[in-house]
Order: sequence, then structure tokens, then C-alpha cells
Amino acid sequence: MSTRDRIVSASTELFGRQGYAGTGIKAILAASDAPFGSLYHFFPGGKEALGAEAIRVGGATYRELVEAFFGVGCDVVGSTRQFFDAAAEMIEATDFADACPIATVALEVSSVSEPMRQAAAEAFESWLAVLRRRFGEAGIEPSRAGELAIELFCALEGAFLLSRATRDKTPILVAGRAATRSVEAAVRPAVPATA
Amino acid sequence: MSTRDRIVSASTELFGRQGYAGTGIKAILAASDAPFGSLYHFFPGGKEALGAEAIRVGGATYRELVEAFFGVGCDVVGSTRQFFDAAAEMIEATDFADACPIATVALEVSSVSEPMRQAAAEAFESWLAVLRRRFGEAGIEPSRAGELAIELFCALEGAFLLSRATRDKTPILVAGRAATRSVEAAVRPAVPATA
Repeated sequence: MSTRDRIVSASTELFGRQGYAGTGIKAILAASDAPFGSLYHFFPGGKEALGAEAIRVGGATYRELVEAFFGVGCDVVGSTRQFFDAAAEMIEATDFADACPIATVALEVSSVSEPMRQAAAEAFESWLAVLRRRFGEAGIEPSRAGELAIELFCALEGAFLLSRATRDKTPILVAGRAATRSVEAAVRPAVPATA
Repeated sequence: MSTRDRIVSASTELFGRQGYAGTGIKAILAASDAPFGSLYHFFPGGKEALGAEAIRVGGATYRELVEAFFGVGCDVVGSTRQFFDAAAEMIEATDFADACPIATVALEVSSVSEPMRQAAAEAFESWLAVLRRRFGEAGIEPSRAGELAIELFCALEGAFLLSRATRDKTPILVAGRAATRSVEAAVRPAVPATA
């Protein structure tokens, strides 16, 4: 991995775990085994430019994860269940450190850094786009597919917050069961009693 | 308001909007019109002790807000709808700055400060307790009431994140409609077709 990639990778991990402002440049360089001065060499815009790039890279990696679970032709009900189950396992396996790679930074910067806020918005939108597409392909009409994508995103992100704060994966499992029920209801609408 | 209260109040607001690490002691003292040195006078434990107190105070204020919407004897379906609608109005009125007073800090500190993580966990639990109680009083059986409280919390917090990042209140309205449907389904279970 190139020095630049190591810097971005270490930043994504550190920002996700402890936030943007709480992660110093020294810590980033140490974690990426990069020489002093290399951050400004690769990111003339400084820490804010690195922050935006870390959000883009972390967001793209997570989009790939979403796509791995919600692949073309997948059973969206089963995929939703498996995605939340895997998120619960991941958060427990990392001692409740690794959940969403960009939520922490997104909340920190939304009101103070427009370049980083936009990077976060675009990352989130790219995940929602994957879900919308799969829900649409599963026969859910477009406006409902869009809402359902947002509902699933919100359930997951809120559960990540509660699970990290309480050091308990239960919220992710509870949110996952609810999300799975919602997707199931959208894919297989209840047959009217008169049918 | 006493100097101590002004320091805590300013901290709660600044931490909620831009995070804990990104808010310097100078900015807190300036916002609270407090003399230099007063922070360590009132908080010998320093910024971390102030952070935990800001979480407790912000958490208690928000619990009062939850209780104002979910009062004793309330219609939990209507309360859920009104709570999300009010959250959407509030976030828009504050230019997408004020949402959850402690989520930003909670994500920043969950893996790095045990006193602040615990304060956040207790605050979140106190909100869930209000919801659980009202859902239980509305006739929802205890384990389902507990799940429903978590679902509502996750929907709200995830929507706050997405709304702040995208500067759009739509996610809060979408999450609110879904939460309202879930509460409605729990309070008024579908009558079996054979009834």
C-alpha cells in the first residue's frame, strides 16, 4: 500500500473510532508509518482535505459491504437480516469500536466543515442508492423503495450509536428484526382477507 | 444562571453541534462568559469531567422533552408522530445544527472515555425507560414495549445523522412515519380475518 493510501486508511479507522477532532496528525502518521510532512505533501489542503478523503474512502468501502450483502438478484428480506446480524457480530468482535466508518465524523463536521459534510452526504447517498435499487428490483414501487432504504439506514445508524454507548449488540439485533419485518411487508404485502 | 451552570449549558450546546474534541476550553469559557480558571475550579477532573456532566445535563433535558411528548395517559401513536414532526421542525429551525444533544459526543468517546461513555449510556437508557413505560401503559406487552422503545430511538438517531449530513429534514419525516406505523401496529394489532 502506498504512503498516501496508508495515511487515508489509518485516518478512516481512527476517525471512525474516536472522531476527527480527537485524532491528531501525529497519531495518524504513527499509525500509517508515514514520515513527518507527508500529510501536507499528499494533502496540501491539510487535515480537512484528508478528512474529506477519509470519508470518501470509508464510504466507498462500506458501500462495497452493502453491495456484498445486497447483491443483484438477492433476496432482500434475507439480505436485510444477514446484514444486521453481521453488523452485530462485527461490533462485538471489535469491542464495540468499529461500526459506521463515517458517522462520528459526519456528526462532528456537519455544522462546521462544508467539504466534509458534503463528502459524508454523498457517501450516505451512495449506500441508499444500492438499497433503493435492490428494493426496486424486488418489486417494491419506487417511492416506497426510497423510504425503505432511508428506514433501514436510520435503524442501523441509530443502533450503532446505542450499541457503542451501551456496549451491547442487542439494539442492532432489535433494529435488524424490525427492518427485516418492514422489508418483508413491502415485498410481500398482506393478502387481503377477501382474496 | 450560576457560572457553573452557564459552563455546563454552553458545553452541552457546543459538544452537541461540533463534538467534544473539537470544542476547546477557550470556546466554552467565551460562550459561557466565565473567567479563566473557573472550569478547573468547578471541574477539578478537567474537560473529561465537564464532558460527563454536559452529557448528564443534556440527557436530562432531552428526557424532559421526551416526557413532554410522551406524558402519562398520552396516545402513544399521536405522540410518536408529533415527536418526530417536532424534531424535523427543530432541526430545520436551527439550520441542521441542533438534533440529539449527546450523539456526537457519545460516538467520539465510546471507545476512549469510560466516564463519558457511561454517562451517555445512562442518558439514553433514561429516554428508553420513558418510552417503555408509556408503551407498557398503552397495553403493549413488556418485551415488545422494550423493543419498540429501542426501534423508535434508533429511527430518530439515525435520521438525525442523515438529516444533518444532507441538510434535509426528509429522513426524520420518513423515519417518523415508519415509527408511527410500528407503534400503531403494536397498540392496535390487526384483527384476525376470522374474527
